[in-house]
Amino acid sequence: MNHLRHLRQTIAHVFEASGDYQRAGHLLDIALISLIMVNVIAIVLESVSSIAVQYHQEFLLLEVVSVSLFSIEYLIRLWTCVDRAKYAAMATSNTKRRIRYLLSPLALIDLIAILPSLLMFAFALDLRFLRVLRLLRVFKLTRYSRAMQLLLQAFIDEGSSLLAAFFIMAVVLILASCGIYLLEHDIQPDKFGSIPAAMWWAMATLTTVGYGDVVPITPLGKLFGGVITLVSMGMVAVPTGLLASSFSEQVRKRRQVFEDAVYEQLIDGSLGEAQLSHLEDLRYKLGLSKLEANKAIKTQLNARSAQLFCRHCGKRP
Amino acid sequence: MNHLRHLRQTIAHVFEASGDYQRAGHLLDIALISLIMVNVIAIVLESVSSIAVQYHQEFLLLEVVSVSLFSIEYLIRLWTCVDRAKYAAMATSNTKRRIRYLLSPLALIDLIAILPSLLMFAFALDLRFLRVLRLLRVFKLTRYSRAMQLLLQAFIDEGSSLLAAFFIMAVVLILASCGIYLLEHDIQPDKFGSIPAAMWWAMATLTTVGYGDVVPITPLGKLFGGVITLVSMGMVAVPTGLLASSFSEQVRKRRQVFEDAVYEQLIDGSLGEAQLSHLEDLRYKLGLSKLEANKAIKTQLNARSAQLFCRHCGKRP
Amino acid sequence: MNHLRHLRQTIAHVFEASGDYQRAGHLLDIALISLIMVNVIAIVLESVSSIAVQYHQEFLLLEVVSVSLFSIEYLIRLWTCVDRAKYAAMATSNTKRRIRYLLSPLALIDLIAILPSLLMFAFALDLRFLRVLRLLRVFKLTRYSRAMQLLLQAFIDEGSSLLAAFFIMAVVLILASCGIYLLEHDIQPDKFGSIPAAMWWAMATLTTVGYGDVVPITPLGKLFGGVITLVSMGMVAVPTGLLASSFSEQVRKRRQVFEDAVYEQLIDGSLGEAQLSHLEDLRYKLGLSKLEANKAIKTQLNARSAQLFCRHCGKRP
Amino acid sequence: MNHLRHLRQTIAHVFEASGDYQRAGHLLDIALISLIMVNVIAIVLESVSSIAVQYHQEFLLLEVVSVSLFSIEYLIRLWTCVDRAKYAAMATSNTKRRIRYLLSPLALIDLIAILPSLLMFAFALDLRFLRVLRLLRVFKLTRYSRAMQLLLQAFIDEGSSLLAAFFIMAVVLILASCGIYLLEHDIQPDKFGSIPAAMWWAMATLTTVGYGDVVPITPLGKLFGGVITLVSMGMVAVPTGLLASSFSEQVRKRRQVFEDAVYEQLIDGSLGEAQLSHLEDLRYKLGLSKLEANKAIKTQLNARSAQLFCRHCGKRP
Repeated sequence: MNHLRHLRQTIAHVFEASGDYQRAGHLLDIALISLIMVNVIAIVLESVSSIAVQYHQEFLLLEVVSVSLFSIEYLIRLWTCVDRAKYAAMATSNTKRRIRYLLSPLALIDLIAILPSLLMFAFALDLRFLRVLRLLRVFKLTRYSRAMQLLLQAFIDEGSSLLAAFFIMAVVLILASCGIYLLEHDIQPDKFGSIPAAMWWAMATLTTVGYGDVVPITPLGKLFGGVITLVSMGMVAVPTGLLASSFSEQVRKRRQVFEDAVYEQLIDGSLGEAQLSHLEDLRYKLGLSKLEANKAIKTQLNARSAQLFCRHCGKRP
Repeated sequence: MNHLRHLRQTIAHVFEASGDYQRAGHLLDIALISLIMVNVIAIVLESVSSIAVQYHQEFLLLEVVSVSLFSIEYLIRLWTCVDRAKYAAMATSNTKRRIRYLLSPLALIDLIAILPSLLMFAFALDLRFLRVLRLLRVFKLTRYSRAMQLLLQAFIDEGSSLLAAFFIMAVVLILASCGIYLLEHDIQPDKFGSIPAAMWWAMATLTTVGYGDVVPITPLGKLFGGVITLVSMGMVAVPTGLLASSFSEQVRKRRQVFEDAVYEQLIDGSLGEAQLSHLEDLRYKLGLSKLEANKAIKTQLNARSAQLFCRHCGKRP
Repeated sequence: MNHLRHLRQTIAHVFEASGDYQRAGHLLDIALISLIMVNVIAIVLESVSSIAVQYHQEFLLLEVVSVSLFSIEYLIRLWTCVDRAKYAAMATSNTKRRIRYLLSPLALIDLIAILPSLLMFAFALDLRFLRVLRLLRVFKLTRYSRAMQLLLQAFIDEGSSLLAAFFIMAVVLILASCGIYLLEHDIQPDKFGSIPAAMWWAMATLTTVGYGDVVPITPLGKLFGGVITLVSMGMVAVPTGLLASSFSEQVRKRRQVFEDAVYEQLIDGSLGEAQLSHLEDLRYKLGLSKLEANKAIKTQLNARSAQLFCRHCGKRP
Repeated sequence: MNHLRHLRQTIAHVFEASGDYQRAGHLLDIALISLIMVNVIAIVLESVSSIAVQYHQEFLLLEVVSVSLFSIEYLIRLWTCVDRAKYAAMATSNTKRRIRYLLSPLALIDLIAILPSLLMFAFALDLRFLRVLRLLRVFKLTRYSRAMQLLLQAFIDEGSSLLAAFFIMAVVLILASCGIYLLEHDIQPDKFGSIPAAMWWAMATLTTVGYGDVVPITPLGKLFGGVITLVSMGMVAVPTGLLASSFSEQVRKRRQVFEDAVYEQLIDGSLGEAQLSHLEDLRYKLGLSKLEANKAIKTQLNARSAQLFCRHCGKRP
């Protein structure tokens, strides 16, 4: 029993790439990422019927192997989750911890990655719908991409503004569709026959995609369309401007966090080995350049030495 | 009479979601927003003739009910406006206050929302034009969206710059149309037969929509068109750049306003309960994150304590 | 002679809207701007042959009147330029001053605005080319738009960066054209028959205009085309990013200029009437909000009072 | 032998535009840049068959001359590289230095520029593929464009963020292709016959290029397509926002570097001739305006004098 628990802990360490198993964990990550990518490429290629026919055996083999590996991964993660710091603290019994884990977003993504294939094997189904759904296993990659999580953060930070932009877009979309519907309905009943149909044109125009499969042809319709193309420039500018501003803020905040850390570490007046290594870790995590980090440290050292002595008693304040 | 006035005041409070009626007011808001959205979706769907025929009764019923509710809302708002702080202070007699309210933008939007249907019912008209105009009731939503008002503020702040961008766009548009008209007029008289006709192509190109229904075909026309596509990148970049800069400024200003408030509250050297609650309100209103707010407070507390007393002699350094 | 000189000086003042003639000058500006706009609209409409035939007399009348007025304006400006401060200081004799003025950009624009029509009247020519060239009088508006000059400044400030972006764009354009030419030349010889022809597709793609009149159809061509569409996102992002950064800088610099001016005015410790009025003028010219200006003044007053006394002698430093 | 070494050193100086040969070096640069541009234009025009036939002799002559010149340039650079400071320090023997140089990116670009033509001449080949490959000599221009290197720096600085954006783009692309494939596969098997085929539509839509050669036609497909056009606005906004933020940062950093340099030079309290000339060099290199540089110097001089001496007692306050 103890042996089993020890094994479980070791595996948990490997999967979390923590402690002595950092290297093994990274290798495992790379292996799993490669497997996911090979899977995605295979599923995309399998949708080409000529390739699907020719390499039918190979695709089936890859699928069986992949689903087996993903299922084993899923079960191991479920088994070892009780040893992970995060879940160990959350509940008292192992069962409760495992249920919590089962309902976590990452575990659900792992489940979605294997479910379609399991259904297909279990019920001998071969629906195109299910086959394509296997592509959802691309989401398994979110577990590995820190940069992607940072980018998503920017979207979340600007959430309310982006929602407002989306709302304005919806109002403009309705008005544009309704205007072009009134102006072009009688001339092109097949293309602007209803407001939902007109929305297809309005959507393509307001996002500056501009397919050109549906265009106004009456002079008034073209005048109105021209105004809407102008409006589209504003529509595109809003989310871009919001994100540009948000990214600038993030850069500023990260620099601020580092400067605060330097300030904290400098309270006793000097930087030891451990403190420098701590700052280096932070610098790496925040994605600052070495040049900039050294700059921040130097600035604060200067500022400190400038105010080093109390003017009254001559000691450090 | 007194009972009636009391009722009027209560209703005014509910509609403004002020005092004890905050909860009731929010529920009313949600109900009205839902009604507006259902209306918009119904009007859009009604323009599909097959749906319009099948659900004729239901659409009519929804319309009658909605217009009745919106009319009642309109009359109640008109009746109770005299109790609202804003209008109470503006004029001496209730009639004058009501006339002022009637001419306010929000009251006009409310009127526009019911007018087309009232006309249709009154004169038994059934014009497509009037039916589509009912979609203007989507503007009733502006009353409820604070984020949208903030976004509009950015457009207004950059007003003069955006106007200048618009003016440059107009000049470039005229020159582009005139150039392509000269180059392609003889080859494609049906598409570039006049400068207004050529403007349709210029508009679609300069906004990077690019329908492709009208394109130059002569070598010189394509060369000129290529130059205009290049110019279009600049045209699109200007409003985006202006808004990005404006949003950055807004973020900076909001942070500044908060820091100033912290500074004001800290003049006596400490933060009491009431002051913290006041800052929390402000933080929420300005849309700052808790982390950032705490940061600002801590920084100013540090700055204050750093320059207040020397740790050794107890005097200001 | 003295009377004539006096008249000339008066007219110069009116045209410059300086001294007592500010109001008259503004009215003249509005009249001329209106005349230019009516002209541009008329020339655009005249290119529609049905309208041109129907209103032939009216267009001719407008043209004769406009050209006469513009010619008179041109001659008056030439006559009075010697009284303008700028040219009065530049040369010793009136003839030299007038030659200098004749060669200034604004005078050349004024000449271009009347030249095509004068040629048409003088030689009884009626070429479409000359008729359309009259549209160049839209450039006369540059004299009146300060905001447009500011916007152009941003383009000039980022000149070297935009040039580099343009250069990268040119290199990418050549490589994209050359790639698609190799891949699609044999399949679509009419559309990708040569590299210049392939450039039309590359241009439309890299600027995200995407007409769709020319598209790759082979699998390899589509793969290459897909990569180029991806690259186009980067191409569009560069000028937008440069302008966004440039506009942010301009806002910062203008705020800085105002803060410096406040600092200068505050050197003697207080702000008099004349100083406040000077700052208000500057605030207006820089386009800062009143709120922000008051903020800057208050901040500097605080900063000043904080360091008011020398710690040694107790006097102001 | 000594004469030869002296000649080699002189040529190395000319090619590096260093020492007394700055002017000669710049003239050589201009000559080589002109030659590259003439070459690129010629190769582009040569792909037009009518022009190729008519000017066959001229193109051949230009090619022979150009390749000879580029080859001579290549050999001279190889011969003289041992005298360049960079390579002189890198290895002990001249052979090793030359091998190092041969493998440097710029030398490889120079080799690529002549290789296709050498192959064509050597084996009397006349393949279109090789002829077009000669266009790669446009890359020789990278040696001369400093602004382009700066712009590339911004891309590299934002590398990890752009990679994350690219990764998100890839995931969205796969999901969009897979969705439209499921919805439109049965109706338009020729256009959405497989997921790779559907990717062509997804690519054109997500980058807002929107050719319109392939569009969904079923109501559900159009609804899904509409959602994807909306998503495309976000996709385009991300790289633009990242670059805008990165450019802003670069401007800030360059200003910071200059201010630090001013601070360093001002430590002894004043600026001598040599120090001002050093700062001017730095200002030019960083691309700051003179106005801004003077501003930074003045600010620091003020700051220094403000905290150096009390005007009354002559001590530091």
